[in-house]
Amino acid sequence: MTRIALDAMGGDNAPGEIVKGGVQAARDLNLEVVLVGQSPLIEEELSKHNVDGLAISVVPASKVVDFEEQPAQAVRQKPDASIVVATRLVKDGKADAVVTAGHTGAAMVASIFILGCIEGVKRPAAGTTYLGIRKPTFFLDGGLNTDCKPEYLAQFAVMGTAYAERIMGIENPAVALISNGAEDNKGNQASIEAFKLLKRSSLNFIGNVEGMDIPGGRADVIVADGFVGNVAAKLSEGLMEALLDIVEEKVGARMSAGERERVLVPAMAELREMTDYQSVGGGLVLGLNGVSAIAHGRSTAKAMVSIIELAKWAVENGLVSAIREGCQSLGWGES
Amino acid sequence: MTRIALDAMGGDNAPGEIVKGGVQAARDLNLEVVLVGQSPLIEEELSKHNVDGLAISVVPASKVVDFEEQPAQAVRQKPDASIVVATRLVKDGKADAVVTAGHTGAAMVASIFILGCIEGVKRPAAGTTYLGIRKPTFFLDGGLNTDCKPEYLAQFAVMGTAYAERIMGIENPAVALISNGAEDNKGNQASIEAFKLLKRSSLNFIGNVEGMDIPGGRADVIVADGFVGNVAAKLSEGLMEALLDIVEEKVGARMSAGERERVLVPAMAELREMTDYQSVGGGLVLGLNGVSAIAHGRSTAKAMVSIIELAKWAVENGLVSAIREGCQSLGWGES
Repeated sequence: MTRIALDAMGGDNAPGEIVKGGVQAARDLNLEVVLVGQSPLIEEELSKHNVDGLAISVVPASKVVDFEEQPAQAVRQKPDASIVVATRLVKDGKADAVVTAGHTGAAMVASIFILGCIEGVKRPAAGTTYLGIRKPTFFLDGGLNTDCKPEYLAQFAVMGTAYAERIMGIENPAVALISNGAEDNKGNQASIEAFKLLKRSSLNFIGNVEGMDIPGGRADVIVADGFVGNVAAKLSEGLMEALLDIVEEKVGARMSAGERERVLVPAMAELREMTDYQSVGGGLVLGLNGVSAIAHGRSTAKAMVSIIELAKWAVENGLVSAIREGCQSLGWGES
Repeated sequence: MTRIALDAMGGDNAPGEIVKGGVQAARDLNLEVVLVGQSPLIEEELSKHNVDGLAISVVPASKVVDFEEQPAQAVRQKPDASIVVATRLVKDGKADAVVTAGHTGAAMVASIFILGCIEGVKRPAAGTTYLGIRKPTFFLDGGLNTDCKPEYLAQFAVMGTAYAERIMGIENPAVALISNGAEDNKGNQASIEAFKLLKRSSLNFIGNVEGMDIPGGRADVIVADGFVGNVAAKLSEGLMEALLDIVEEKVGARMSAGERERVLVPAMAELREMTDYQSVGGGLVLGLNGVSAIAHGRSTAKAMVSIIELAKWAVENGLVSAIREGCQSLGWGES
């Protein structure tokens, strides 16, 4: 049974929603959840749920990394912080994956310090499957690396290709760089240099794509720096939510109560469910010697179940070895 | 009557769609259109339309700046390029605004060389009104400056505030920086430094906002560098289009033919019209001694009409003096 170390203290809605999500995941996903954090708070939350027969345990951690803290310093000075203890469980073989909705930077630093990077990886990146209209696109970096050197972007392309090939099962995946124009010479300084590295690589590099190509499914893998990637991912979520609200209002206004009940209610539920996949609430960290998944700070219990499921799926599909072997066979994009 | 110098040769669909848009604008918007470019091609396109009684003239320009050309070099070496000639018409008082769907970089360079920047402006920026769900947000830079120094971003905030205050009529507009998190310490190197400049400024700076806050209307003015801004704007357009297609499919599948005709067809038309505003196809360039509007390369006639209307509106509302006076009264964000 896959074991998930869940940082119960991380996130805007911790520990309540995190524990609730952990309990639900243990019940619905046939996995073991190790809740890491301040035991009295966790126990109090657990007492609100029926946990009979579920594989749930608690590992105490006395400290929490606050959202305002400097990541490296926080991780170094707080060895008993929940994210540090949870990550260590994976390193020590007591859990198969670590999941947090806490401080992204601290989670990344803890992962790099404790799990370490796959040989050759300069910066791990957060990847998410963006469910485009025609086909899904694997999109990275979702927010771990705000200022990227060109070679980091090229490595993200390699890791993304490995993921698409070995985990998504796409043959010779087409990889693209996000840019402010489709022409070869468009981009910012880092992306223009990354373009040149990728052009010379063995990847199936199709060049630059634009913002509309993220939902448009023009590439199997789209690479951005973590600042752009984060804005794009959160913009997509917010826009879909907002647009569906307007759709409901405008379509509903032209319907009778009976039509709304019969047509609109189920259709909107289907649409919200479809687009909610996209807001899985975070992503997998690629490039580590271990499975780590980072959820949005504002994650609810439902979002936590999604990201726990993603982490479980990554463990069971051999994410780490897929990335390691894929990157070895592809080279590092700098031929 | 406001006179628009229209670069008839710029854009993926030039000159056909550009000329068509110009004719439509002259007919519907009570303005004068000066078509600039290769006369035989323009005349050929004009012959396809009824232009009786419309205020349309042609100013010849023998060259075109190609999408692949290096902007500054192209503008210097091709004084007879359509974008250069069109911009010069504004400088010489023969037109009130220049509009192009051509090479964005070349348009910007031509504008800076020929029209010049308002005193104190380090970099002009492209601004668009993003019609959020709760209220419109003025969003800049839409794509002119891919790598921004912190002081450029701070100046965008000043110009955006001046625009929101004096053109949109918003009192004490709230201005925010786009970032990968809402906390003060989130951002990339440039945005973190810009945050500090803005914190010390006289603006109503509300701090960092995230991707979902662009459609969410959390600020009156949102500032991004042109790379991020371009990706965000094009992603929004593409996602809305794609999502409305799915909505139509999923809602329509639950309806009878009669219901589709009566409810879905008009509702979708209304929704597409609403969201199409957002894809006005470009933006106004702020910070110049003249009105310049840049449309997307792929603009159709319809998009050209929208951007011509925007340029007309900017002329008639005194954009240049609003920005000049607004920036003087606000200072430059570096107190």
